[in-house]
Amino acid sequence: MTDQHDPDSNPSDDLQIEDTTRSVREQLKDAVDQRDVEKIEALLEPLPLSGKMRQLLNLSQDDRDLLLEVVNAELAADLVEEAPFEAATEMVERMEASRAAEIFEELDSDLQADLIGDLDDDEAEAILSRLDPEDAADVRRLVTYDDDTAGGLMVAESFSFPDTATVGAVLRSMVSDDDDFERYRGQHPYVVDADRHPVGVVSLRGLLTAKRSDKLTTIMTPPITVDADLSLDDLQDLFDGNNFLGLPVVDSTGRLAGVVSRSAVDGAALERSESESLKRQGVVGDEVRAMPLWIRSRRRLAWLSANIVLNIIAASVISAYEETLAAVIAIAVFLPMVSDMSGCSGNQAVGVTMRELSLGIVQPKDAFRVWLKEVSVGMINGLALGVLIGFVAFIWKGNPFLGLVIGLALAINTVIAVSIGGVVPLLLKRLKQDPAAASGPLLTTITDMAGFFLVLSLATLMMPLLLS
Amino acid sequence: MTDQHDPDSNPSDDLQIEDTTRSVREQLKDAVDQRDVEKIEALLEPLPLSGKMRQLLNLSQDDRDLLLEVVNAELAADLVEEAPFEAATEMVERMEASRAAEIFEELDSDLQADLIGDLDDDEAEAILSRLDPEDAADVRRLVTYDDDTAGGLMVAESFSFPDTATVGAVLRSMVSDDDDFERYRGQHPYVVDADRHPVGVVSLRGLLTAKRSDKLTTIMTPPITVDADLSLDDLQDLFDGNNFLGLPVVDSTGRLAGVVSRSAVDGAALERSESESLKRQGVVGDEVRAMPLWIRSRRRLAWLSANIVLNIIAASVISAYEETLAAVIAIAVFLPMVSDMSGCSGNQAVGVTMRELSLGIVQPKDAFRVWLKEVSVGMINGLALGVLIGFVAFIWKGNPFLGLVIGLALAINTVIAVSIGGVVPLLLKRLKQDPAAASGPLLTTITDMAGFFLVLSLATLMMPLLLS
Repeated sequence: MTDQHDPDSNPSDDLQIEDTTRSVREQLKDAVDQRDVEKIEALLEPLPLSGKMRQLLNLSQDDRDLLLEVVNAELAADLVEEAPFEAATEMVERMEASRAAEIFEELDSDLQADLIGDLDDDEAEAILSRLDPEDAADVRRLVTYDDDTAGGLMVAESFSFPDTATVGAVLRSMVSDDDDFERYRGQHPYVVDADRHPVGVVSLRGLLTAKRSDKLTTIMTPPITVDADLSLDDLQDLFDGNNFLGLPVVDSTGRLAGVVSRSAVDGAALERSESESLKRQGVVGDEVRAMPLWIRSRRRLAWLSANIVLNIIAASVISAYEETLAAVIAIAVFLPMVSDMSGCSGNQAVGVTMRELSLGIVQPKDAFRVWLKEVSVGMINGLALGVLIGFVAFIWKGNPFLGLVIGLALAINTVIAVSIGGVVPLLLKRLKQDPAAASGPLLTTITDMAGFFLVLSLATLMMPLLLS
Repeated sequence: MTDQHDPDSNPSDDLQIEDTTRSVREQLKDAVDQRDVEKIEALLEPLPLSGKMRQLLNLSQDDRDLLLEVVNAELAADLVEEAPFEAATEMVERMEASRAAEIFEELDSDLQADLIGDLDDDEAEAILSRLDPEDAADVRRLVTYDDDTAGGLMVAESFSFPDTATVGAVLRSMVSDDDDFERYRGQHPYVVDADRHPVGVVSLRGLLTAKRSDKLTTIMTPPITVDADLSLDDLQDLFDGNNFLGLPVVDSTGRLAGVVSRSAVDGAALERSESESLKRQGVVGDEVRAMPLWIRSRRRLAWLSANIVLNIIAASVISAYEETLAAVIAIAVFLPMVSDMSGCSGNQAVGVTMRELSLGIVQPKDAFRVWLKEVSVGMINGLALGVLIGFVAFIWKGNPFLGLVIGLALAINTVIAVSIGGVVPLLLKRLKQDPAAASGPLLTTITDMAGFFLVLSLATLMMPLLLS
């Protein structure tokens, strides 16, 4: 057993392997340099999927390409499947089309279509032309659907039978050695008419109690189908409310187009949640550190540059009050504090609204109700924080009016911040903008400006008292 | 074709319903006030699950209690199941134990155990004593396992058969009208010995090709089992790498304890991702706005108070340089900008590390490699941002040295920020702290202090040039 001593506190085999990772890493590098395919496979096979991925991503770009070129197609497909989508696209892009086609044969039609959709047209065509024509046709069809819709999440392969088929035909297909059956996992046998309109679904119970010569039409029940353009949110709702493992998807003409599985929906929801969380931190796309430096740098910089402009706008408020600042220099100490604390309060409100949006329990038109609820929290917390920081300012400089200026500014700005933080994601959603990416920068700019303005204008008003 | 008009599965219907939500809301309120159970059920039933939840959470606390009291247990169970966990616990807490027990009968043993684990001992006991003794025993057993382990995510009910059973027994059980069969969805028949150790798993193919009189032991294959304390990460890995819909879970004595399903694992991963994303924004627990004001306010305030202390520590750096500030007041304009932009850069690095952690492609011991990768990005982005802001400062005041001070400070602080942002989550993880909650505040405090120090100390050094 390769994996005896496990530092990472995990009981499973999976992590026991990690203890020897350093040497696995080195051994893998050597094996790749020597193009020792057997050694590479022997090193990777015992690792859990994430461990395989970790080893792959730790290799240099060239070694990574080489590894994916030489290992068996099944292992390469596992790696492409497990990789963050963008990294997976890059892996495929860098392969020969013939190799990519080999690997494609091991992938779900769903992932095939996602990858093809992201490649250059020439590369996509080169791969498609090497696939089984029927599979290629499926992919060409799937690629037309938007991501995060039933059409974008479904697989083209359906466990379907003509309405003339018998129970025996289904049972024979289930026990056949045909590998395809694995692809239908979670699917019920669907019955389609001559035009491929779904007309029924057959339960396992029905199959087992019927005679083999019975027509499927005698035991089927009407199918629940979903339209190809049904959104991820609605799909989540549908699967949450039912026990289905998969649902047949129909195109705009009502024909069976594929099957969307519960786990495809769950997976897409997880990906969306993670990508939104990243966007809120200013990471766009699914960056992993194995990507080329200049891509990572450029993407982060794009977001930072937009942000620095907003920062300059906010700071211009301070520059309008240089006289006040010069007179009471202590205020400069509190400016970043007031703006930062308000930003934090506002971000909490953004977080709760984003969550309620994703749970479907709040909608853009609920903005007013959300605002009312946030204002109450804002007043309590603003008061508490204002008193705290006001007291600190008073103690520090011995001037109660300085405390009053700072405390009052923070209290008011907290109410402003939670109001904006709670409502902005809803407004962005209504304007069909992406609330995950834009709420944060919008919020901080406004709360910075308001915070600077409140502190400095209150100080200007009370200047004689501050100087006494 | 029944579901042409099935409101639960049809997107357009969902939308139509949402359009009239205002009146649904009002009608529902009236129906609850009048305790018109039929009307309440008629209003809620056609809504998708999230719509039901939205209506429920929009009611006042008393109306919510009343609604959950009077509707049929199945609908009430759907609502409890769909609600954010904390809200669900509160709903159950506020019910009579006898009503809660009625609703419990409709829930998975997994959720039963989670709820029981969160209730007061007295309430938990009152509900358990009203459950079927066998179910209650299951719950008592499940409640001992940690959340986010196989034991915490499994259901107690398993589709298992003694090693003396025949194929016919399994088939009879599959076609029986027993409602329990629904609970086993995604499970294969597991074969256990007299001590309930799993000894085999039977495939559908095997069942259909064998004679009814065959013993299961003749067609079973060795089972893949997981330990009850296997972590969520490892479970994700395991399900990612395989097609299983469920896996049998064994306790420390190797006995079959339950079954963990792919969808329970996916659901837990989604919840964890969302809760981490909220924690990074300073929202602890799963706040929804339907919770009492004082709970929401107190929780947010707890996090803000810790943060304000960190802010005060950071700002104390500024107060040490009041003389410099007073001499070159323009610097006050740039202080928040430098600290804010560095915070943003650092947060990007935190985001990428958190993501790589959750994908399992980076581990605490990779800190040095991560740091190297971040430093490169930090140098490029720091240079770009530093030149930009330095140029702005130069143009604004016409003093190139002011531009140099600000630009240099931002450039250096960007490198510091991404270094800390990339590495801190890994260190927190190694120290068994929660990286999602603590990385942000730790990062901002350090980058604020470093930013203030850099700007002000550079300005002090170059004071003669700034004043010229």
